[in-house]
Amino acid sequence: MSSTPARIVMKFGGTSVGDLDRIRAVAERVRGEVAAGAQVTVVVSAMAGVTNRLVADCAALHDLADPREYDAVVAAGEQVTSGLVAIALQALGVPARSWLGWQIPLLTDNAHGRAQIESVDGAALIGCMEAGVVPVVAGFQGIGPEERIATLGRGGSDTSAVAVAAAVKADRCDIYTDVDGIYTTDPRIVSRARKLDRITYEEMLELASVGAKVLQTRSVGLAMRERVRVRVLSSFAESGLVQAGSLVVDEEEIVEKQVVAGIAYSRDEAKISVRGIPDRPGIAAAIFGPLTAAHVNIDMIVQSTGTDGLTNMTFTVGCVDQARAVAVLEEQQDHIQYAELHTSRDVVKISVVGVGMRSHTGIANTMFRTLAERGINIQVISTSEIKISVLIDAEYTELAMRALHTAYGLDAR
Amino acid sequence: MSSTPARIVMKFGGTSVGDLDRIRAVAERVRGEVAAGAQVTVVVSAMAGVTNRLVADCAALHDLADPREYDAVVAAGEQVTSGLVAIALQALGVPARSWLGWQIPLLTDNAHGRAQIESVDGAALIGCMEAGVVPVVAGFQGIGPEERIATLGRGGSDTSAVAVAAAVKADRCDIYTDVDGIYTTDPRIVSRARKLDRITYEEMLELASVGAKVLQTRSVGLAMRERVRVRVLSSFAESGLVQAGSLVVDEEEIVEKQVVAGIAYSRDEAKISVRGIPDRPGIAAAIFGPLTAAHVNIDMIVQSTGTDGLTNMTFTVGCVDQARAVAVLEEQQDHIQYAELHTSRDVVKISVVGVGMRSHTGIANTMFRTLAERGINIQVISTSEIKISVLIDAEYTELAMRALHTAYGLDAR
Repeated sequence: MSSTPARIVMKFGGTSVGDLDRIRAVAERVRGEVAAGAQVTVVVSAMAGVTNRLVADCAALHDLADPREYDAVVAAGEQVTSGLVAIALQALGVPARSWLGWQIPLLTDNAHGRAQIESVDGAALIGCMEAGVVPVVAGFQGIGPEERIATLGRGGSDTSAVAVAAAVKADRCDIYTDVDGIYTTDPRIVSRARKLDRITYEEMLELASVGAKVLQTRSVGLAMRERVRVRVLSSFAESGLVQAGSLVVDEEEIVEKQVVAGIAYSRDEAKISVRGIPDRPGIAAAIFGPLTAAHVNIDMIVQSTGTDGLTNMTFTVGCVDQARAVAVLEEQQDHIQYAELHTSRDVVKISVVGVGMRSHTGIANTMFRTLAERGINIQVISTSEIKISVLIDAEYTELAMRALHTAYGLDAR
Repeated sequence: MSSTPARIVMKFGGTSVGDLDRIRAVAERVRGEVAAGAQVTVVVSAMAGVTNRLVADCAALHDLADPREYDAVVAAGEQVTSGLVAIALQALGVPARSWLGWQIPLLTDNAHGRAQIESVDGAALIGCMEAGVVPVVAGFQGIGPEERIATLGRGGSDTSAVAVAAAVKADRCDIYTDVDGIYTTDPRIVSRARKLDRITYEEMLELASVGAKVLQTRSVGLAMRERVRVRVLSSFAESGLVQAGSLVVDEEEIVEKQVVAGIAYSRDEAKISVRGIPDRPGIAAAIFGPLTAAHVNIDMIVQSTGTDGLTNMTFTVGCVDQARAVAVLEEQQDHIQYAELHTSRDVVKISVVGVGMRSHTGIANTMFRTLAERGINIQVISTSEIKISVLIDAEYTELAMRALHTAYGLDAR
């Protein structure tokens, strides 16, 4: 990080371009990188609040607005920011021009409102940079197969930035946010949370998927596939200050490997318990088949058998899906023949993530012992290669997070 | 006007789409025409106030913002409205889709910020209508030769509407505004002003160019060239009400020809008098050459000769050009050798317009006599084939307008 890389993408989110003064600060920051000799492409979000207002207008006119029209409306937010940032750069004497999704072009599939990027043509942006002009790309948007504007879904500007970085073969993609890096956990809950210098793609991906909000999950997945080095840093730090931020990189680039990289939590979970089901083959299919058909995403699952030959199935869904899941299960009662249906939102999912789990044993045991010592009951457990998640009573959130943070040796010294 | 034409363009300005309720009202009005059997294309402006805010943001960042970036920013206003109106139509069960300038495409020249339309491809819009879908076109915008968004300058949405009407071979272009038609003069000044059922292109063009604000001059010129029948009517009238509005048409379509169609006034005039110039050949060139070189638009001119062999030149310029014109003339004093330079904004230009002037004599005389009877001094006179303009002291504006309105038999009965 001592020498400036040849080519970087700088991405600024909604609060970073929230008003004209913030836009001027962004331009200053870009000028700094250009002055240091870098070729820079900028990617911007809509100004804070703008997208929400446009979304609300669409919803007020039609409760199920045509996603193609929704896209035309909300994409205007990023269009405005890209033009304004280009103007702010020009005002500082830095040649710049705005690029909209259809001009690049950044091609997407046809899933308007939550489109996937199919390809990004880097040629025009590279040509622009090589002509000494800073491209300012409107994030969050592309053009679909019907030549209409398509947006990538909320948080899609991070994904735009990573995709553009891959397309222009950038040495690094700097994501400017309102925090100065990636932390071992949420510093608002654990005051001893520590900023990580580096974290692997896999760890960041797991942390993002279980509630850490600093980077959008899709953008991390794309960065991992395309091997884009992503750096998270603050857009609110003084412009001249050299920031280290946090770097998301390949595992090989991590020198000091930690067993656990971070701890995340998610309160966006609803627990559903289906109890007193006659135990017979096909019970899981009878429950989860109709839920999947109704597009309910199931997360954690545990099955337990009572002494009376009846079985219980407990699982979690996102809070938005709770009502739909309950409706589906009530409809299926005759078929499943359960005795009781319970549901609760007073739960939190706490996840411990680290690539070190692959080679170290006892990580799960540390978690179970630490929680047991505090008298915290684990309701559901799920694990993946580099993650352990537990569902506990929400009132223990802070206690559990702090205890685990200490137990895994993550506390700042 | 009794039977609905096969194909119409309906254009709605900023106050007509000023908020979500107004947008719903626009959708209702469009549904009415569709239900009556018409093929409809809608053209919309930005919601009232939006363009001004975007323009102000550009200006705040750079006092001479790059017009290509300015265009990318301000065109977002119409983009949002076109999507929202499409959604509002769909909410009423009317199939609709938004069209941006680059999607149509509506091609312009490269004069960003005040671009001229080069061509409009009607094929996609016609195909859309024939598929039973109402196209909702973002007005004011097109795409320039460098594949960048270009805007047509303030009021350009009227021009978009007329150009689209020509391209789709519409039977009529309905311009919905905050007034219910074209009046013989400004009803706020002359209470007896009368709505005109019909007016010729030529008359409307002259009236628009001398201060009547109901239609933008460029749009009338285009309608005249392309022979698009334009109707002006109110977007604030009750939706079910059948409105006659005012029709702008070919001279042959006017049955009851009036000698004078309307009277307009403009307070946007500054009078400049250059006095005491040695009378010699080339004086006019010495004065107006440098002004033209400085892009000052000269309007009315009168030259008068004093008894002392010296001559005076009096002329008018737009108020925005006044300071520049004076600066140029002061710079040229050595060359022109005038004795005095006077300038005043306390003047108004009053214009009487009518195609009947071609065949009727005495129109000018009626004007001079009417003003003389009220003791109003005429400072400068200019005439064209169907227009007479006089410059008078601004304090006589209302008196002169009312007297002339009566003198030409325009008062409502």
